[in-house]
Amino acid sequence: MSREDPDVIDSVEKAFRLLQAFSAEHPTVTVSEAAQLTGLTRATARRILLTFTRLGFAESTGREFRLTPHVLRLGYGYLNSQPVAERAQPHMRALADKLLESCSMATLDASEIVYLARVPAARSMSITLSVGSRLPAYPTSMGRVLLAALPPERLQAYLDGVELRKLTPRTIDDAEALRAELERVRQQGYAVVDGEREEGVRSAAAPVRDASGAVIAAINVSANAARVSLESLREEFVPHLVATADAVSRDIGFDGARAVS
Amino acid sequence: MSREDPDVIDSVEKAFRLLQAFSAEHPTVTVSEAAQLTGLTRATARRILLTFTRLGFAESTGREFRLTPHVLRLGYGYLNSQPVAERAQPHMRALADKLLESCSMATLDASEIVYLARVPAARSMSITLSVGSRLPAYPTSMGRVLLAALPPERLQAYLDGVELRKLTPRTIDDAEALRAELERVRQQGYAVVDGEREEGVRSAAAPVRDASGAVIAAINVSANAARVSLESLREEFVPHLVATADAVSRDIGFDGARAVS
Repeated sequence: MSREDPDVIDSVEKAFRLLQAFSAEHPTVTVSEAAQLTGLTRATARRILLTFTRLGFAESTGREFRLTPHVLRLGYGYLNSQPVAERAQPHMRALADKLLESCSMATLDASEIVYLARVPAARSMSITLSVGSRLPAYPTSMGRVLLAALPPERLQAYLDGVELRKLTPRTIDDAEALRAELERVRQQGYAVVDGEREEGVRSAAAPVRDASGAVIAAINVSANAARVSLESLREEFVPHLVATADAVSRDIGFDGARAVS
Repeated sequence: MSREDPDVIDSVEKAFRLLQAFSAEHPTVTVSEAAQLTGLTRATARRILLTFTRLGFAESTGREFRLTPHVLRLGYGYLNSQPVAERAQPHMRALADKLLESCSMATLDASEIVYLARVPAARSMSITLSVGSRLPAYPTSMGRVLLAALPPERLQAYLDGVELRKLTPRTIDDAEALRAELERVRQQGYAVVDGEREEGVRSAAAPVRDASGAVIAAINVSANAARVSLESLREEFVPHLVATADAVSRDIGFDGARAVS
C-alpha cells in the first residue's frame, strides 16, 4: 500500500487508509490494532488516531478509538453534490410499493457498485444493503447497466483488470460472454440478472441519465426467485422499472426526447 | 481554522477541511475556489486535490475537481460500526406505513443531529433529508431526546456553548426553558416538537438504547401540522413510535426489563 508518488501527500494517504480500517468487525481499534490493520507503524497510527480525535472524527475510551458521526461529513459533500440520490427516493418508494419488492440505486466506483439509496420492500424485515455498501459490478444488474454505459476504452480497462469469479453456478465468468451481455443490456436499455451473485435472488436494473445524457446511476428491483418468476420480472417489473428510471432522469434534467446513443 | 495542536497532523486537518468544501453549491471546485473556500494557500489546495485524485477520491476534468463515490468509504466504517441504522430500517418502514408519515433516525454530533436513516412517507413526493444531513439539536424532537440523555456536565457544556435562535415564533430560545423541557422529555420518554424548527411541521421522537442502556440514537415521526393535530400526534403516534424505538433497542441488545434511569 505504500506509495512513492510525489503528488500524494503521504500523511493524507495514511490517514485515509486508517479511517477505512474501521468496520463492522472493527468498530473500535487500539493503536496496535490500527497499525496491524493498515501496515502503518504504531507511532504513525497513534498520531493519526490522535489527529482524528482532536478534529472530532474519533473519540477514545482509554485505549480504544471509535469513529464519531462527524466522519459522515467527509462523504457528505459527495452525496450532496449528487442530487439524484434524494430526487430518486420518492420515485423509488413508489416503485417498491407498486411491485412489493425492494428498490435500490447505485453508481460505479472503479470495479464496484456503491449504493446511493435503498427502499426496502414493505413486508421485508430483513437487514439489507444500505448507502455506501459495495458489491462487485459484473454479477449485479445495476453493475451491468453501469458497465454497459462505459466508453469502449474504459470497459476494456475494466475487463482487463477484473477477476470474474463464479459466485454461483450461473455467474458469467468469461470476459467475452460478459462483453456480449453488456452489449445486449446497452441495446435493450435494462439488465436482468438471475442468481448470478446470490442464488435465489433475481433483479432487473435500468439506467439514470443526467442532463448531458450520461448514465450516472442505475436503479434496480430485486426479488426472491421463489416469489417472482423470470418471466414476470421481465414482463411486469421491467416496464415499471424503466419508467421509474426515466422519471428520475427527467427529474434531474435529462431531456428524454433527445436521442441517446 | 489554523491549528497549532502538536497532536494534529497539519496536512490531515487541511485535507479533511478541503474534503468538506465540496457541497451542493460546490459540486466541483477549481484550485482557486478550493483555496478560497478553505483558507488554504493555492499551492496547498492544489497538492491536496492532486492527492485526492491520485487516491481515487476525486477526479478532474481540466481545471475542475469533483469527488467520486470512493469518498463514501470514509464515512462507511462509521455507518458499518453502527448496526442500529440497518437494524432500524424495517421497523421504521413499518411505522411509516402504519402512520402514513415519514420516519427518521438520527444521532448527536456535538450540537447537531445527524441523520442515519430515513423512510419517506408513502405518498410523499417531496425531497427530504437523507443520511448525513444535519440540523441543530435544540429545536428538533430527535435532538431533544438525545440532549435529554446527556450526562449533566455534557448538557451544561452544550447549553453554555449553543446559540439558541428563534427559528420560528414557537422556538424555545431560553436555556433554562430548554433545560426544563429536556427534563420533561427525559421523564416521559419521548419528545414532541410543534413547529419550533419550521412552521407547520410537527414531530415526535423516542430514544433508542444499546445493550448498556445508553441512548445512542433517536427515531422520529414527522408530519404536516395541517394534517396531524398535536393531540393525534401525542395520543395516536407517540405510542406506536415508542413501541418502534423500543423494538429497535431490543434488536440491538437492550434488555428492556432492566431499569434505566
